[in-house]
Amino acid sequence: MTHQLYTQVSIVGPGLIGGSIGMVLRTRGLAGRVVGIGRRESSLQEALDVGAVDEVTCTVREGVAGSDLVILATPIRAFRKLSRAVVPAMETGAVLSEVASTKMGVIETLRPETRKRDDVTLIPSHPMAGSEKRGAPNASEALFENSTCILTPLPGTPADKLSRIRELWEAMGAAVHEMSAEEHDRTVAAVSHLPHLGAACVARIVAEKDGRFAGGGYMDTTRVASGDPRLWRDICESNAGEISTTLESFAREINTLRELFRQEDFDAIEEFLARAKQRRDRIVRNQIQGDSDDATVQNRDDT
Amino acid sequence: MTHQLYTQVSIVGPGLIGGSIGMVLRTRGLAGRVVGIGRRESSLQEALDVGAVDEVTCTVREGVAGSDLVILATPIRAFRKLSRAVVPAMETGAVLSEVASTKMGVIETLRPETRKRDDVTLIPSHPMAGSEKRGAPNASEALFENSTCILTPLPGTPADKLSRIRELWEAMGAAVHEMSAEEHDRTVAAVSHLPHLGAACVARIVAEKDGRFAGGGYMDTTRVASGDPRLWRDICESNAGEISTTLESFAREINTLRELFRQEDFDAIEEFLARAKQRRDRIVRNQIQGDSDDATVQNRDDT
Repeated sequence: MTHQLYTQVSIVGPGLIGGSIGMVLRTRGLAGRVVGIGRRESSLQEALDVGAVDEVTCTVREGVAGSDLVILATPIRAFRKLSRAVVPAMETGAVLSEVASTKMGVIETLRPETRKRDDVTLIPSHPMAGSEKRGAPNASEALFENSTCILTPLPGTPADKLSRIRELWEAMGAAVHEMSAEEHDRTVAAVSHLPHLGAACVARIVAEKDGRFAGGGYMDTTRVASGDPRLWRDICESNAGEISTTLESFAREINTLRELFRQEDFDAIEEFLARAKQRRDRIVRNQIQGDSDDATVQNRDDT
Repeated sequence: MTHQLYTQVSIVGPGLIGGSIGMVLRTRGLAGRVVGIGRRESSLQEALDVGAVDEVTCTVREGVAGSDLVILATPIRAFRKLSRAVVPAMETGAVLSEVASTKMGVIETLRPETRKRDDVTLIPSHPMAGSEKRGAPNASEALFENSTCILTPLPGTPADKLSRIRELWEAMGAAVHEMSAEEHDRTVAAVSHLPHLGAACVARIVAEKDGRFAGGGYMDTTRVASGDPRLWRDICESNAGEISTTLESFAREINTLRELFRQEDFDAIEEFLARAKQRRDRIVRNQIQGDSDDATVQNRDDT
C-alpha cells in the first residue's frame, strides 16, 4: 500500500529514533535509499547491522549529497554545529527535518543556516514515541505504530513538501497533527516536561532508607525521573520559557493544597482530588475513544 | 507448614483487604473460624460466596463474641463509631487490630474505647498491599504475598500478643516491620501520600484538549490521581500533620527548580535531575536487592 516518497533520505544520528525511521523507510519502500551519517564508526556499523540504513558515512557533505530529505536525529545540543555542515551541503529543493522534542529553540538554532538557503525547506517534526533504551540496536520498525507525530511547519512552507512529509509519518504508522511551534512547546511543557519535573521533585524527597516501603504509587509517579539527566537538561534548556510558565502553575496548585491543609478544609481537599481524577479519567477515556474511532488497537500502558 | 494461630477471627468489613485476609486465614488454617461483620447483607453474601468467611452477621456483639482477634477493615471514617460497639463486646485477652494506612489518628480514634479495656490489646497494622478494585469479589488469597506489613505496637504491648500477630502476617506472605506510629506516618506521607498529591497537581494542570498528546510519562506520573477521592480525603485527614510537613518540602523543591529556571542555570538543573534519578535508582535497586536476599520473586511493576 506504500510507495516511494523520497529518492534518498539521510539520517544524521541513526540511533533509537533515527534508526527506527531508517528501518521503516527501508522495509516499506518509502525511500529509494537510506544513508546514515554519524561520528562514530561503531555506531554506524550497528545501524548497518540492524538494517536501519543502506550505507553509512562520517562525512556530512558526502552523506547529504543526492538526498531529497535530511533528518537530524541527534541530541539537540549538536544541532547548531551540525546545521553549519548539513545545510550548505543540501540539494536544491530538499527538505530538512528533525525529531527533537521541543521546537521554538530548535528552529532558532537552525534558522541562521536555513535562512541562507531559500531553496531548502525546514519542516520540524516531533514523533511522540521513544523508549528509555538508546542506540540503533534498540531501534524498531514498530516504534511509530499508533504513535502521534506533531509537525510545526513555518509560515510559507510549500504545501507539496508538507503533505509529502505528512504522508511519510502516516506511512510509518503515526497520527499526524500540525500546530505552531509555540503551541507545540506549550503543549509538551504540560503533557511531558511538567510530569518529568514533578516526578523528579517527588523522587528527591523520598529518603533512601524509606524506599523499602515504597510501593506502586511511588514507583509509577517517579518512574520518568530515572530518565537521562543530560537529555532532560537539553529539553529544559530548549523549552525553558514554557516550562517556567508551567512550573508557576504547578507551584500554585501545591500552594493551594498547602493552604487547604492549613485550614484543615478536607471537603475542599476531596474536591481538589476529585477534579484531578476527573481530568485524568477524561484524558484516558478520550484517548481510548480516539483509538477506537480510528479502529486501531493501541498498546498503551494504561487502561 | 502453617498452624492455627487464633481460635476465631472477626473481620469487620470483609471487602478487598478484609476479604483477602479471611481467605488466607481459612485456606492456610491460621484461624479455627472466620466471622465476617458488615452492615449490608449483600456485601456479606459476597464475602461468603468467595470463601472469605465461614459465617456472617450484621450484629457486632454477636460477631465479636468468642474471637481472640478482631480486625477492623472498614474505611477509617467508620472507626470511631465502630469502636464503641466492638471494643466493649470483645473477649478478655483478645487482640484488636486494624488495617488502615495511617496510624496516629487511628490510634487516637480507637483509644477512648480501648483505654476502658486493659484486658484487650490494640495492635495497629498496615498491610502495604491493595488494588484500585474494591469489595470481596476482588479479594485474593495472594494479595499479601511478597508485600510489606508495618506493625505500630503501643508501648507496653505484651510480647506474646505481638509475636503472634507478627507470625500471622508472615504466614500470609508479608515481610513484617515494626516502628512507632509517628515513624510510620512520616514514612507513608513521603512514600505514598506525597506521590498521590504530586500526581494530582500534575493531573490538574494538563488541559483536557492537550490530553491527546499525553504519552507514557503523563500516564505513569498521574496514574494514582485516578484513585478514589473519598478514600484519599480520609487519608489526608488522618495524616494531615505529616502530609503538611512533606508538602512543605515538596514546595521547596519546586521553588528551587523555579529559581534555577529564572537563573537559566541549566548545569544546576541537570544536577537537580541527576540527584532525583540517583535517589530513585537506589531505591529500586535496594528493593530488588532485598528481594533476592529473601530469595523471593517479587511481582513489582517496575524493573
